[in-house]
Amino acid sequence: MLLNLDLIVRNGVVVTASDQISCDIGIKDGKVKILAAGIPPQEGCKEIDAEGAFVTPGGVDSHVHIAQSAAKGLGARSADDWTSGTRSALAGGTTTVIAFAVQARGASLTDAVTEYHKKSDKYSVCDYSYHLIVTDPNDVQMHTELPKLVKEGISSMKIYMTYANLKLNDGEILNVLMAARKYRVTTMVHCENADIIDWMTNNLHERGMTEPWHHGTSRPPIVEAEATHRALALAELMDTPMLIVHVSAPEAVNIIRRAQTRLLPIYAETCPHYAILDGSEMRKDGFEGAKCVCAPPLRDDPKDKERIWEGLANGTFTVFSSDHAPTCFDDDRGKKLGMINNPTKNPRGNFRTIPNGLPGVETRTPLLWSEGVLKGRISPQRFVELNSTNAAKLYGIYPQKGTIQPGSDADLVIWRPDHKRVPHKIENSKLHHACDYTPFEGVVLEDWPRYTILRGKVVYNGKTNEVLAQPGSGNFLQRGPSTLPGPRNQWPSEWRPE
Amino acid sequence: MLLNLDLIVRNGVVVTASDQISCDIGIKDGKVKILAAGIPPQEGCKEIDAEGAFVTPGGVDSHVHIAQSAAKGLGARSADDWTSGTRSALAGGTTTVIAFAVQARGASLTDAVTEYHKKSDKYSVCDYSYHLIVTDPNDVQMHTELPKLVKEGISSMKIYMTYANLKLNDGEILNVLMAARKYRVTTMVHCENADIIDWMTNNLHERGMTEPWHHGTSRPPIVEAEATHRALALAELMDTPMLIVHVSAPEAVNIIRRAQTRLLPIYAETCPHYAILDGSEMRKDGFEGAKCVCAPPLRDDPKDKERIWEGLANGTFTVFSSDHAPTCFDDDRGKKLGMINNPTKNPRGNFRTIPNGLPGVETRTPLLWSEGVLKGRISPQRFVELNSTNAAKLYGIYPQKGTIQPGSDADLVIWRPDHKRVPHKIENSKLHHACDYTPFEGVVLEDWPRYTILRGKVVYNGKTNEVLAQPGSGNFLQRGPSTLPGPRNQWPSEWRPE
Amino acid sequence: MLLNLDLIVRNGVVVTASDQISCDIGIKDGKVKILAAGIPPQEGCKEIDAEGAFVTPGGVDSHVHIAQSAAKGLGARSADDWTSGTRSALAGGTTTVIAFAVQARGASLTDAVTEYHKKSDKYSVCDYSYHLIVTDPNDVQMHTELPKLVKEGISSMKIYMTYANLKLNDGEILNVLMAARKYRVTTMVHCENADIIDWMTNNLHERGMTEPWHHGTSRPPIVEAEATHRALALAELMDTPMLIVHVSAPEAVNIIRRAQTRLLPIYAETCPHYAILDGSEMRKDGFEGAKCVCAPPLRDDPKDKERIWEGLANGTFTVFSSDHAPTCFDDDRGKKLGMINNPTKNPRGNFRTIPNGLPGVETRTPLLWSEGVLKGRISPQRFVELNSTNAAKLYGIYPQKGTIQPGSDADLVIWRPDHKRVPHKIENSKLHHACDYTPFEGVVLEDWPRYTILRGKVVYNGKTNEVLAQPGSGNFLQRGPSTLPGPRNQWPSEWRPE
Amino acid sequence: MLLNLDLIVRNGVVVTASDQISCDIGIKDGKVKILAAGIPPQEGCKEIDAEGAFVTPGGVDSHVHIAQSAAKGLGARSADDWTSGTRSALAGGTTTVIAFAVQARGASLTDAVTEYHKKSDKYSVCDYSYHLIVTDPNDVQMHTELPKLVKEGISSMKIYMTYANLKLNDGEILNVLMAARKYRVTTMVHCENADIIDWMTNNLHERGMTEPWHHGTSRPPIVEAEATHRALALAELMDTPMLIVHVSAPEAVNIIRRAQTRLLPIYAETCPHYAILDGSEMRKDGFEGAKCVCAPPLRDDPKDKERIWEGLANGTFTVFSSDHAPTCFDDDRGKKLGMINNPTKNPRGNFRTIPNGLPGVETRTPLLWSEGVLKGRISPQRFVELNSTNAAKLYGIYPQKGTIQPGSDADLVIWRPDHKRVPHKIENSKLHHACDYTPFEGVVLEDWPRYTILRGKVVYNGKTNEVLAQPGSGNFLQRGPSTLPGPRNQWPSEWRPE
Repeated sequence: MLLNLDLIVRNGVVVTASDQISCDIGIKDGKVKILAAGIPPQEGCKEIDAEGAFVTPGGVDSHVHIAQSAAKGLGARSADDWTSGTRSALAGGTTTVIAFAVQARGASLTDAVTEYHKKSDKYSVCDYSYHLIVTDPNDVQMHTELPKLVKEGISSMKIYMTYANLKLNDGEILNVLMAARKYRVTTMVHCENADIIDWMTNNLHERGMTEPWHHGTSRPPIVEAEATHRALALAELMDTPMLIVHVSAPEAVNIIRRAQTRLLPIYAETCPHYAILDGSEMRKDGFEGAKCVCAPPLRDDPKDKERIWEGLANGTFTVFSSDHAPTCFDDDRGKKLGMINNPTKNPRGNFRTIPNGLPGVETRTPLLWSEGVLKGRISPQRFVELNSTNAAKLYGIYPQKGTIQPGSDADLVIWRPDHKRVPHKIENSKLHHACDYTPFEGVVLEDWPRYTILRGKVVYNGKTNEVLAQPGSGNFLQRGPSTLPGPRNQWPSEWRPE
Repeated sequence: MLLNLDLIVRNGVVVTASDQISCDIGIKDGKVKILAAGIPPQEGCKEIDAEGAFVTPGGVDSHVHIAQSAAKGLGARSADDWTSGTRSALAGGTTTVIAFAVQARGASLTDAVTEYHKKSDKYSVCDYSYHLIVTDPNDVQMHTELPKLVKEGISSMKIYMTYANLKLNDGEILNVLMAARKYRVTTMVHCENADIIDWMTNNLHERGMTEPWHHGTSRPPIVEAEATHRALALAELMDTPMLIVHVSAPEAVNIIRRAQTRLLPIYAETCPHYAILDGSEMRKDGFEGAKCVCAPPLRDDPKDKERIWEGLANGTFTVFSSDHAPTCFDDDRGKKLGMINNPTKNPRGNFRTIPNGLPGVETRTPLLWSEGVLKGRISPQRFVELNSTNAAKLYGIYPQKGTIQPGSDADLVIWRPDHKRVPHKIENSKLHHACDYTPFEGVVLEDWPRYTILRGKVVYNGKTNEVLAQPGSGNFLQRGPSTLPGPRNQWPSEWRPE
Repeated sequence: MLLNLDLIVRNGVVVTASDQISCDIGIKDGKVKILAAGIPPQEGCKEIDAEGAFVTPGGVDSHVHIAQSAAKGLGARSADDWTSGTRSALAGGTTTVIAFAVQARGASLTDAVTEYHKKSDKYSVCDYSYHLIVTDPNDVQMHTELPKLVKEGISSMKIYMTYANLKLNDGEILNVLMAARKYRVTTMVHCENADIIDWMTNNLHERGMTEPWHHGTSRPPIVEAEATHRALALAELMDTPMLIVHVSAPEAVNIIRRAQTRLLPIYAETCPHYAILDGSEMRKDGFEGAKCVCAPPLRDDPKDKERIWEGLANGTFTVFSSDHAPTCFDDDRGKKLGMINNPTKNPRGNFRTIPNGLPGVETRTPLLWSEGVLKGRISPQRFVELNSTNAAKLYGIYPQKGTIQPGSDADLVIWRPDHKRVPHKIENSKLHHACDYTPFEGVVLEDWPRYTILRGKVVYNGKTNEVLAQPGSGNFLQRGPSTLPGPRNQWPSEWRPE
Repeated sequence: MLLNLDLIVRNGVVVTASDQISCDIGIKDGKVKILAAGIPPQEGCKEIDAEGAFVTPGGVDSHVHIAQSAAKGLGARSADDWTSGTRSALAGGTTTVIAFAVQARGASLTDAVTEYHKKSDKYSVCDYSYHLIVTDPNDVQMHTELPKLVKEGISSMKIYMTYANLKLNDGEILNVLMAARKYRVTTMVHCENADIIDWMTNNLHERGMTEPWHHGTSRPPIVEAEATHRALALAELMDTPMLIVHVSAPEAVNIIRRAQTRLLPIYAETCPHYAILDGSEMRKDGFEGAKCVCAPPLRDDPKDKERIWEGLANGTFTVFSSDHAPTCFDDDRGKKLGMINNPTKNPRGNFRTIPNGLPGVETRTPLLWSEGVLKGRISPQRFVELNSTNAAKLYGIYPQKGTIQPGSDADLVIWRPDHKRVPHKIENSKLHHACDYTPFEGVVLEDWPRYTILRGKVVYNGKTNEVLAQPGSGNFLQRGPSTLPGPRNQWPSEWRPE
């Protein structure tokens, strides 16, 4: 049986979240079948020579917004549909994305999922799943629909502490966490204090401080730190796993680190823009700053970026996600919305109406590889952990995804060997998403994926910059519970949430 | 003119918040006129020989609930009216109390004050003022009524983060703090997370866990720590002074200490019961535990008391207040309410309906003196700071109150000299309040005030345990802004609350 | 070539420091050749059926004292020679040990190594290497001998901050660290403040406090915390990797954690006895307490053990080592030395003369597996990291040792499947070391290695409790530099150690 | 008797460490006799009208080096003798100095004191005392001489952790602290790690990095933080009061703050230069940088100064001292020594031979008043605490010194009222010391003492900048034990230092 392989990737340095092995990878039926040095050539079996380069697991981007309905209640249209969004993913070395099925207030979680399948199933070119966005955690949703969806393989929820149409109060969050505990669901939380943001926003507008960069003024680091501290208190009380999404403020990082030291089941995510960009982007001339409006905002102190890298290196961050949320800049339905809704065409803009979010699914993995591994900030193993393994474990698709081991899906990124690396400048014209800009325009990387392989097939060829997969070829992934170390039942038996 | 004194207190060791002076105190017209050793005897001038004992400023109890309307929305009737409550104060060495004028939701602050004057002016036997309890911080109240009341000498507000009828959300708190900043008002905050308490309470009741001590289960330390962290975030944002009332949890103490280290204008209060008692009180047989139900609750870990003493000694706590909130135990309108509203007369009780609060205005000062100074935990100077000076400064009645200096009101406590000290057991029968129990029953103190002097008159004689003042002899105090070190305008000029 | 395997381990759950794979392991020439599910049976190839049990990499015990010369200057004779010590290792699942070649003051490092080879090469039954113990870091040793020994594969040094015959002062440590930086050597440090220990010991003896448990009194946690803080300061200054050996005090753990958060190249080790035992062991009747005298001492507060487990789970600890240092209790040359040197035969003993150290090479891995993994405190992956992988990486024998990957030495521990697990009580009579006691006597484990495999050969059979390897069959391992994330050159270019 | 005053200071705002009183001060026989508003005019009694200005206690500078023998083993001659040094003190508002009687190695403490009396008694113009500098803590010195000197009123010792001729090792420090505990002596510690400094200095010199500013390179903040942590460990062990002198590094401040939070008897001192100057001073052209060479060095990060102010405001620092250590810049025996001992006259200098220390006794108080109080960083009360009261209490001369209370010495500084304040530029030509430079040249202050009064006599008139006291008019002060809150006997009774 070993003689019947479909593809051999030869001479790679295979990297996992802990190891680094010089060996060949034998692939059959879309799965890694065998790891060994010197697999004998086999008739009818394709081969790719990695030439001594690193081979890493396909990226798992566990935070992307694609073709999302009523995105964030701001009326912004996602620039990407499932085909353009996932083509972009593959071109950047990401073979799995997890996007968001949004429950409208008063509506059903199941309906949200059903509807989202229609948008994705025939169109996705990479493997995918959904997190639920829960906006109305009533008993029926939490205790009838949720367990049903969990059985269908949707094992994570996202909740918001801000945005009028999305936010839950602390009591609602406790209801969500109790259900999460009961049905073994991972909860993701957007941590910003809604009341502070509203108060600041109103106050700034009354004073005419409406330029794009006052988006940042309206959400100072304490907005994030406060909500993070509160969310962790709720998670500690309920003793159930929680991931804090898109962490940007050092204060929040500290709070999370202390919780992890105490072994609370707290995970954290950060994104490329917080590690690479800072608040000065929002102060660019004219309305250019709107391109970098996201929430939490890019932080003003440039040193904060080093704190993000510190958290990436020291283990505080569990996953590194794109928070891909594309809206066009020069399209009437996109970022310029702010000016459109501002009837006086005030050149200073109106930050309140700028949709939050940046595109980034394609640049995520190459940025982490180049700025992280190749610049010596993190090890290749830590890269794999952040880029693939931890997301796969946390969201219940490990070991199918997230590693290179016998039995895993043969999702691979083959990089270039040292002697073949050439500088790669990020330019939006080369990217595959449908957004008309990238916040990383002009950043020069040291490498870019040479091949992306999904379930044993080359789906992106870096030489030609071509995506080779067809719409609908991506598979929906049924997920199980987290396999990362979880809660420790630290509550006294006298009271334990039940 | 120096020859015309009314009273000379001789041979005392006068203590201020920083000094300790062996000298005589010359008093005229209710004021300290002169400090000097060996003031010559004067005709017609009374003398009291302190016999070498400590003489400390009259206590300022800045947190008492007396004859409060609709107390805390729980329907509990205050056991004390203004006469019994302030007689109790004098007997314990407290010459000034600050109680609470409660704004009902939708009603006017001014009306609350007017009404409260009716209850107190003709009845108080010690000097007094009011904090406003703000439950509805609309624009009229905050920007028309509040500045008017500030001019009338009411320079502090209290707000709640919990209790259905009292609590403000974060946005409302920001409105309050902005007004506080503008009109130089000190804001006191009751920090507990309302949503967690509600959730826990409902959950416990569903499971039949209704005994008095589950009051503590429903409000674990994280409930206080979370709200404290959040309140401090709001104060930091608004850069305005805030006092956290009745701090009980070490986690909250740590959060406050860190803020103070960074020079945020954060003050903290703790109370005798958190330093002396612990959660085991609530587990006493039968319904006895109800006597010690207060919020935040007494903490279960007995070591937490040492952490409270640590905060008293190291300067974290600014004031030591009684949070006097008396309700009778064997009176139908009192603590037993819980059982009454529990029609099945379940002997396990129903913690949800037990009014929160303990009596303590009379025992506060003697407990701090005996357990703190005489047991070596704090210095006499720190005692004065916690018992009198800081409250007088923070609430704007310094130097009229809170110290013993030329020009100050002659409010004094004269203790016993070493050789005359005898153990003093606390028994409710000896106390002067109208409550039918004290949580400190049986505690043995090393001393009790020998004389309390208010504006130059002996108002309590410890020898006979008699209060000598007449109803209405207490003065309403017009207060100004805090004179403790305040905010530092740490905000960048790009945005500063205004 | 794939058809020519020597051994197939079937149906195991292979665990690495990040992964968990159900597959077979094909072994040839002592190496892992292939990982794949369903390797076809091969003629002449042995097979072992793991029956679904976990298969973990052979243990790497990077801190053992075996047949060490002049051990620690206390004249204690090691109970174990290289054969008994390494037999004990294999029986406990450890296939690689790193012991200590001690430089005598004024003598040569090379001589120490040469002499140690004589003791081990013909006698060891497991693979092995040496750390240098440096007691005299003069220029010749550091800059002539050390680089020579590094080329011979000895890439680590241990230094002491205490013990009269071993300790280095801070200046000497800096010299050592500068050499470590230059030649890429990992430095291990025993952190206890020598002066405090001497002072306390003298003071206790003057007062007649000489019982075994006053060994602990003489070395309170601050002795360890102080030295740890100091060692970390020196490592930060020199920006070179340092491992703090046998950490026992929570204060020290906190200091290390903070350094790691800042990405200093600091690693930490703890040992089974600090996680399982506490200071009460030293207070046992008679002289029994002497059995548990080690340095740092077992800590008095039983809660400290949970802090050690916290550090094992949260990543603070890099390796889990035995610090195997066996001396006999009922042998004249052993632990009783204390009484012998105490001519009055004072039954209270004389802690100063009790040799420090406990036996433990055999129980280390089973304790971590049973108390850690099977009791849910750590994941199987974290077990592998602590038990094997990190030591292999830190000390430069990865990937030859420390993992199960194609190309690695086939060093395996096969555990029992769930349905075959039976309680295993630790009894010294079952152990293979030459010491007459174990501090873990009576501890009941949930499992014990079923097979230990060294380079493809079964060297221990758990069914019969037999060690099957012959003296001299162990290989000396040439080691390279650490491959764990290292220093970050954080010094300003204006001054960088060189 | 009240009618027989010598001097009345009228219309001042008298400030103590806690209070602020508008009143007159009646003085008789060099003592404050009476505090009262409106003291009636008395025949033959002088009067000074403070015109509403602040009146603060005379400064107590508890860290000055004057005419010190063999200062710091560097052969530097003190520029000041006792007359010039104390004239400078008076001119800056300091009425009490505590200087250092240095024990030479192997010599007697008593001899050091006797010799120092010869230098000071007939020459000092302000009141004074000595700390002992202990360099040889043998049993005779610690247990025969020390208690004798304590009886003579010398109740403090200073020890060094660095400088070849001065430093004690940890064991010696423990001996010192045990004696300190026994005889109730306060111990001051210079915290820098000697070994690191030596190592760095040698290394820098080998590389030719010898410019003045490499003095700072040789003593990075970690040198101070390490030694501070170590000293605190020793103090905690011995449970005896310790003051850390001249703290400059934020890391050290944090360590101290944490110790104080835990109520360890730890006090801290900082100096004007650490609050006002930074490391850029040492990089000035030519050899100018040598003027600001002191130890610990001025710190490079300008933000560190704000951390020092933070510690001054939040209570971490107990005293604010000058560390006056004057050596001339243009005198062969002074700061230029570095170049002289550098035979090649290398213009880059040789930092190793530059005497450490800056002059500052005259500028200390005006800098703290102007930069601290008048710029709003600290309150007038905190100024008094830092400038006078705490030093008086810690070193056992309170309440004779350090406050303005009946019975205290009438040592006063009268400042200018608001309407009479004019900018005052610091220029060395106006100062009264014998040093040829001030590091604060050109700093513009908002005020300078209008009058300094020592025991009821005007000794400095700010209008004329004249010192009016005669050599020998200063009194030697016999001091007692500290009256600040002290150790708490936190050791278990099982072991307590004795």
